[in-house]
Amino acid sequence: MKRIYSLDLKKHNKENVLVKGHIFQKRMMGKVNFIILRDRDGLIQIVLKDAKEILKVQDLMDESVIEVKGICVYDDRSLNKAEIHEPKITIISKVTEPLKIEINKPEIHANIDTILDNRPIVLRAPKERAIFKIQATMAQAYREYAISENATEIFPPTIVGSATEGGSELFKFKYYGKDAYLSQSAQLYKQIMVGVFEKVFAIAHSYRAEKYGTSRHTSEFIQYEFEMGFIDSYLDIISFCINAIRYIKTKVEKDNAKELEILQKKLPLIPKDIPILKLKDAQEIIFKNTKIDKRSENDLSPEDEKTISKIILKKYKSDLVVITHYPISKRPFYTMPDKDDPDNTLSFDFILRGEEIATGGQRINDYKQLIESIKKKGMNPNDFVDFLEIFKYGMPEEGGFGMGFERLTQQFLGLSNVREATLFPRDVKRISP
Amino acid sequence: MKRIYSLDLKKHNKENVLVKGHIFQKRMMGKVNFIILRDRDGLIQIVLKDAKEILKVQDLMDESVIEVKGICVYDDRSLNKAEIHEPKITIISKVTEPLKIEINKPEIHANIDTILDNRPIVLRAPKERAIFKIQATMAQAYREYAISENATEIFPPTIVGSATEGGSELFKFKYYGKDAYLSQSAQLYKQIMVGVFEKVFAIAHSYRAEKYGTSRHTSEFIQYEFEMGFIDSYLDIISFCINAIRYIKTKVEKDNAKELEILQKKLPLIPKDIPILKLKDAQEIIFKNTKIDKRSENDLSPEDEKTISKIILKKYKSDLVVITHYPISKRPFYTMPDKDDPDNTLSFDFILRGEEIATGGQRINDYKQLIESIKKKGMNPNDFVDFLEIFKYGMPEEGGFGMGFERLTQQFLGLSNVREATLFPRDVKRISP
Repeated sequence: MKRIYSLDLKKHNKENVLVKGHIFQKRMMGKVNFIILRDRDGLIQIVLKDAKEILKVQDLMDESVIEVKGICVYDDRSLNKAEIHEPKITIISKVTEPLKIEINKPEIHANIDTILDNRPIVLRAPKERAIFKIQATMAQAYREYAISENATEIFPPTIVGSATEGGSELFKFKYYGKDAYLSQSAQLYKQIMVGVFEKVFAIAHSYRAEKYGTSRHTSEFIQYEFEMGFIDSYLDIISFCINAIRYIKTKVEKDNAKELEILQKKLPLIPKDIPILKLKDAQEIIFKNTKIDKRSENDLSPEDEKTISKIILKKYKSDLVVITHYPISKRPFYTMPDKDDPDNTLSFDFILRGEEIATGGQRINDYKQLIESIKKKGMNPNDFVDFLEIFKYGMPEEGGFGMGFERLTQQFLGLSNVREATLFPRDVKRISP
Repeated sequence: MKRIYSLDLKKHNKENVLVKGHIFQKRMMGKVNFIILRDRDGLIQIVLKDAKEILKVQDLMDESVIEVKGICVYDDRSLNKAEIHEPKITIISKVTEPLKIEINKPEIHANIDTILDNRPIVLRAPKERAIFKIQATMAQAYREYAISENATEIFPPTIVGSATEGGSELFKFKYYGKDAYLSQSAQLYKQIMVGVFEKVFAIAHSYRAEKYGTSRHTSEFIQYEFEMGFIDSYLDIISFCINAIRYIKTKVEKDNAKELEILQKKLPLIPKDIPILKLKDAQEIIFKNTKIDKRSENDLSPEDEKTISKIILKKYKSDLVVITHYPISKRPFYTMPDKDDPDNTLSFDFILRGEEIATGGQRINDYKQLIESIKKKGMNPNDFVDFLEIFKYGMPEEGGFGMGFERLTQQFLGLSNVREATLFPRDVKRISP
């Protein structure tokens, strides 16, 4: 007998069917009893009357795995519009210890640490399943969009011999006697590959030994990477990124209606025209609207990002705003300065619902200019030999971005901590499971 | 003026066009001279007659980046069936040092070390571009197939707190004062996620501190991961894997005809019926055909894998053969023994063109049986606490495989070293670029 999944059950009215899954809930109320079974696609109600069958499951704990043969009965009011009558139950796998956390309630009432300590079980809860189903769709959508734009997927290494970004937040280890690091970003490899395929993308791991446990940072995270040569300006990169986000939203709406309903979340507003503001103009707008004067700062604080987002949402009905022209001092050495505004760069941050989700810009593509830029930052070009090498061999004008995979999920679904959008988060406190 | 790419050029006969790219080759022969330009899609021939234009490019080294405005002239005999006449050239980026390796010949005549030392430039050569274009298609195809089979994509972590496989080939490092490791495989995470989504897949990094520099091993590699619950038998997993390989082949044939022509390679033969042999039977066949007696061995040597492949190819016109029932002693503790043949396991290797490319099987899904299995291997269950935890909470019969992403590319394209199919290989000698 072929197994039927919950979503298809309603097509099998009055047929003998076989269903399998985990016990999501038991409702043992005396004469009539119910088991709610969870399978790949959703929930199935089993109606239990036979004393022998009731006895079988009486002591079974939630999450035990069973298979059930019975008669499918169409019922408009039931879960997935059908239920199973006259079940014959076979136990496949018994739960041997009580769950440390209840996962069959609409909300899990536990703090984030307890949730993460019990991650393998918590992930079975409906809301967690919905989050990571949507995240899978988002990854698929990002790749679909990039491929439709003729970008080629690349698979950069994560073990590297030297730092590409500078800074101290590096995980270092011994690699056959030499010093090695976990990659801070795919920057070098993306740029090398611009010389090969012109337009490339990756979904790649990055590592930062972040010392603080903020709700926005983890030590291992994934980035949607993109890099493109022969650009006319940095606006080409911004345009790709906006369109990618819009494509991702459209695909999630189409493929994940059920999950969005479980989460009771609305996706961000991404209107036709997305405001693109220079940092200075954003600070001016913040000042005009709130009388808080940050106009002499050389960056936006996390708080400023929330403020500008609120103003933009109100005025333009957009949850997304792009800030450009961050000063040279706040950007990596490879960032291209703006010829018409030479203290500032052709760089950008994407702010979605008040949080930075992507950062990028045009890169310096000239070898000598890169050397100068490294020196101006007080760094030694000899520390960047691997990085610099490729710029001796012909590089077009180019740029790209890195967008936080987990952060985008977080902001799409209005989650309060990026760990909720990370399958198995790694941070100062956490390295397992 | 909008840029035209090489493949579209032929549609623009007699039009003024703009093309951009790297100088792949110059043929300066006196009166009539040619530049072969390389762009994203292929090569373009530029016919140079004007002395002023010739002077501009006279000293330009190969790989310099230029843009060219000129008249497109359809010509059946020319590269991509069109060439550019009366060009006006603008130099975008000059190469400042001669290339250490010639990349504009049909073959790169250098040993693998020289090739890898110059990887960023070598990747621009036509054959290398073709390999990684095909690899990108293969990744896309694997995901398409898995999604069509209702598997959900997952993104397992690469930093882990304990080993899942046992063994000593671990990269260890300090993680905020604690010991951490680079993940040997996504095994634990795939199995956890079977409890969540039933059927999951990933394209995930694995790390092994391999001490020997064989042509089949690197220290960082990628695996097509798959895991599936509620299986009827290990044959369900084998069937998924065969179908995935067949799907990948079909997509590469469809999308990469041009690249296959550049490489002059034929993809492996994957007939309708793929031979599936028990290890013992494979040894028997080797003995019958070669008189070499390995029937008392408990594994196939790399040489045996080549031998059985040749025999199978000859007899069944298949480049793929599946070997099952490896003994318990040769498989990880979580491998399910065969009830009817209790010294051997419901495990398999996929041998493609003489090389192992995938390994998998049914897993033990019972907590107590897992503990017993760990003890029988002389290991301590306390070392596998993270791994074991999930089996207390209900796990269906399940199994899966890991298939080498680079090895599959290598065997698809008949490459002699897995490094040729690895974008930036990492091994005992190599950690950069």
